[in-house]
Amino acid sequence: MEQNYETLKKATAVCNSREQWSAFKESPSTKLHGEEAPVQGRRAFEAQLGHSFELDQPGEIGRLGHEISPYTLEALGIDYPEINVDVVCEAAVRAMKSWRSVDPDRRALICIELLKSLERRCFESTWATMHTAGQSYMMGFVGSGANALDRGLEAVVYAHKAMTDIPGHAVWSKQFGATRTALEKRYHFVPRGVALVICCATFPSWNAYPAIMANLMTGNPVVLKPHPGGILPMAIVVQDMRQTLADNGFNPDLITLAADVLETPIAGKFFDRQDVGIIDFTGSQRFGSWLEQNIHDKRVYTETSGVNSVVIESCDDLQGMVESISHSLCLFSAQMCTSPQTIHIPRDGVDSDQGMVAADELATMIVERVNTKTENPAHAAGICGALQSQASLDMLVNLQRQADTIGRLLRPAAPYQHPDFPDARTATPLIIGTDDPDQALLREEHFGPASFIIKHDDAQSALKAATSNAKNHGAIASHVYSMRDDFLDLAEASFLDAGASLTCNLTGPMPLNYAAAYSDMHVTGLNPAGNACLTDLAFVCDRFRIVQCRWPEGTRS
Amino acid sequence: MEQNYETLKKATAVCNSREQWSAFKESPSTKLHGEEAPVQGRRAFEAQLGHSFELDQPGEIGRLGHEISPYTLEALGIDYPEINVDVVCEAAVRAMKSWRSVDPDRRALICIELLKSLERRCFESTWATMHTAGQSYMMGFVGSGANALDRGLEAVVYAHKAMTDIPGHAVWSKQFGATRTALEKRYHFVPRGVALVICCATFPSWNAYPAIMANLMTGNPVVLKPHPGGILPMAIVVQDMRQTLADNGFNPDLITLAADVLETPIAGKFFDRQDVGIIDFTGSQRFGSWLEQNIHDKRVYTETSGVNSVVIESCDDLQGMVESISHSLCLFSAQMCTSPQTIHIPRDGVDSDQGMVAADELATMIVERVNTKTENPAHAAGICGALQSQASLDMLVNLQRQADTIGRLLRPAAPYQHPDFPDARTATPLIIGTDDPDQALLREEHFGPASFIIKHDDAQSALKAATSNAKNHGAIASHVYSMRDDFLDLAEASFLDAGASLTCNLTGPMPLNYAAAYSDMHVTGLNPAGNACLTDLAFVCDRFRIVQCRWPEGTRS
Repeated sequence: MEQNYETLKKATAVCNSREQWSAFKESPSTKLHGEEAPVQGRRAFEAQLGHSFELDQPGEIGRLGHEISPYTLEALGIDYPEINVDVVCEAAVRAMKSWRSVDPDRRALICIELLKSLERRCFESTWATMHTAGQSYMMGFVGSGANALDRGLEAVVYAHKAMTDIPGHAVWSKQFGATRTALEKRYHFVPRGVALVICCATFPSWNAYPAIMANLMTGNPVVLKPHPGGILPMAIVVQDMRQTLADNGFNPDLITLAADVLETPIAGKFFDRQDVGIIDFTGSQRFGSWLEQNIHDKRVYTETSGVNSVVIESCDDLQGMVESISHSLCLFSAQMCTSPQTIHIPRDGVDSDQGMVAADELATMIVERVNTKTENPAHAAGICGALQSQASLDMLVNLQRQADTIGRLLRPAAPYQHPDFPDARTATPLIIGTDDPDQALLREEHFGPASFIIKHDDAQSALKAATSNAKNHGAIASHVYSMRDDFLDLAEASFLDAGASLTCNLTGPMPLNYAAAYSDMHVTGLNPAGNACLTDLAFVCDRFRIVQCRWPEGTRS
Repeated sequence: MEQNYETLKKATAVCNSREQWSAFKESPSTKLHGEEAPVQGRRAFEAQLGHSFELDQPGEIGRLGHEISPYTLEALGIDYPEINVDVVCEAAVRAMKSWRSVDPDRRALICIELLKSLERRCFESTWATMHTAGQSYMMGFVGSGANALDRGLEAVVYAHKAMTDIPGHAVWSKQFGATRTALEKRYHFVPRGVALVICCATFPSWNAYPAIMANLMTGNPVVLKPHPGGILPMAIVVQDMRQTLADNGFNPDLITLAADVLETPIAGKFFDRQDVGIIDFTGSQRFGSWLEQNIHDKRVYTETSGVNSVVIESCDDLQGMVESISHSLCLFSAQMCTSPQTIHIPRDGVDSDQGMVAADELATMIVERVNTKTENPAHAAGICGALQSQASLDMLVNLQRQADTIGRLLRPAAPYQHPDFPDARTATPLIIGTDDPDQALLREEHFGPASFIIKHDDAQSALKAATSNAKNHGAIASHVYSMRDDFLDLAEASFLDAGASLTCNLTGPMPLNYAAAYSDMHVTGLNPAGNACLTDLAFVCDRFRIVQCRWPEGTRS
């Protein structure tokens, strides 16, 4: 485990420089993993189907689970422990009491070991993520695998920084008149208590790993509460981490699983408990806000959702811009918290490297590019994946029905035929155009592949609408395209005032959605899309508190 | 101002080592300050009496103020601006918008300049503090002067650390397939908004300076809301800081005064404002808890009060212990958040370097030492100062009347005759003994010189009562005396579980109450005595948020 020191050092350096780096393999290529690993991973997943998931953890009072694969629309048939919350929390508190005496350096090595061990099951996790979240194979491997593990490691770095900011022990002495008083001081880093980590269904690992690592590093035991529709990937995490902890001589109850089903949600049972000190939540803005406003005696960290926008004033790479926007509308069927939903353009069109482009022409280009990307089913499958929930399909039907009221239907959503999974729940992007930016519906999140191309009087109005939406309704990823320095400056200042991060003129193979660990700050905490950031010091340093003890120097061992 | 770099460097080093240091003159001696400075300071204070306080700040709509000196019981006769909250907040927001572009290094230099400038008025501030808070001359100079300025500088260090944790600009590049994407990233450190700093009446500067510095460093403009009974010391702060800011070319509206009178409190007018992002509160536990539970859309930092205890199991320096405890019961008439209130002893007495001491004998020793300390009025004046509020006198009368119900009166409170101020509101310590530890009244704070010597079945029971009180009713400073290593270990573990800091076996000239900047963590945030600590990373790093902007490398200036 000592080689994890090098990983910690390198990760700390890149957090400081914000440069590109990964501690994990970012490709599923057999050149990196060998021929066997992908096959074994898939087999491990398939062997699990229809069976009880083995998780030797305290407080089991029954079995539950009802996951449906978005690719087969069949039940996975896996059951998980149904838990007694009292027993699980009490076990977690016991684990915390021994864990809190482990020093921060050691904790970091173990946390990195937990991440490295998880990576060994990356192919199994990929299949588990595909068949619960609906992600494509590639996204399941990279986005929910390596990229998520990197975000976990980033949280280890920040928590380690925060916990080594002051020494655990110091000697202090001061002259009072003729006498010198010398005191030894011990600083205890005290965890807040059990941390309930509530995951979303579509991208659980990317937010869960940072929360798990931030909590374990700061001494807080974790109860992982997956979405009822996406238990398996998180059950694998808990199973693997418990094993690694035990293998290294630590109490595995530092992490436990609190699975539930939609009909009998379990999270609320943790809210009134005094021994629960922290809640990490990823999911809807509605529930996130409720937690922020109603839970006063715990630290609540939320990453929710918003209405992400693209503002187009002009562009110096018309084809590249259209490609990037279209790709982002398709990517994982826009089920990401970074997916754009509103595209704001001036009604008189935009200047570009190919001359003036009329607004309608630009809209048509985007629609046609989406068509191109989705007309080949194999290609569509690789980009769009499947819809995690029937609710997204219902949303599409509902919006499509209203298209004429909103404006006009530019592109209907339609299923594509997945080459490997004929029953997959799929939809290509719905795109609606409108000349009326003031509709309330444009300011709500529509979870799934639905977007709006909105015409404004001019680019300034477009920018104003986008920033106002970000400020009042939340935004996680915002984009602007412009060839004018002054407009880019204005956009940066306006999004800054709105408390929203901005990307300018991004084209090329990097998806608009991409947020890099160690470099990109994810969620600002200044708009309704959440109060926490992956990862800054604020994400970690109030998860523990400092209690000190002082005594005359040399009088205690 | 560039020499402030050296101060910042040194202060940062001692925050990391937790060693003793001060950036300010900790003695009012004329050897350090010259013969004239103390005289001029007193004259400046006296010249202010009966006059309007000059404060050229926005939003003045009238004048108000009704401070009574605890030393003369006469009105100071000073009036201050009555403000329009809208105008003040709008001016603060304007100031914030220019201030936020000043880089963290520069901000630190300016903040240190603000503190150094304040030090130049240290004698005037001492007199202002005496005649509002009731502090003695020495405490007003050292505790409310140098020590408070050091705590302010400590907050500058922590905020500077938090804001320089990542660079303001970075270049990131990553290979996507055959293409390398290179992005420049700018990280904006965004203040939360106007910070309302609410001060207490008895020791305003010690908590206000850290809050002011933490806020200004992180970009948030400050509205300072003094206690209606202690406006003058804080008005001097605002006046001086506004001048220093203006002298250095900054908008003085970064700090303004929101004075009020008891009959028409002003703080509530800030609570519903969206542009107020932070509340720092020092004062009663009742109001602090109310803020924590009811203000959801702002960051609330509280430092309130608790029931501080001394647990005596045994001692190796009986005289020294009795001296330390007695001194602390007298010091500033126990009007400090670190003053002990309950002394827990085993009913069978305690072992000591002078053999076994019976419980009653120990109580008598404490009472007699308090008598000795207070029988000479000049000596009493130096230690006890005056009572800030008539409420403390009422409390003493009320408790003294109940003494027989609680247990027995060991020492009555009585006024002492202040040699310089014959009308001063004074009281020597009230001490009540009891054999019944279970009385609710023993678990409440009685603000002023009242304490209880409580007999328990044994030392373990004494410890249990003290830690349970700390956990459930709050504690800021707790003490234990024991010659036994195992008992000290148990005490440390028990107070740790209670979330309370502990001092063991402290004797000698350092007061039990003393908390050193750069070294002692003040308030744990784990018990009802407040949620914030002076000063750790958690105190500063969520006062700003990070908003990022990224664009293709080299495409913007």
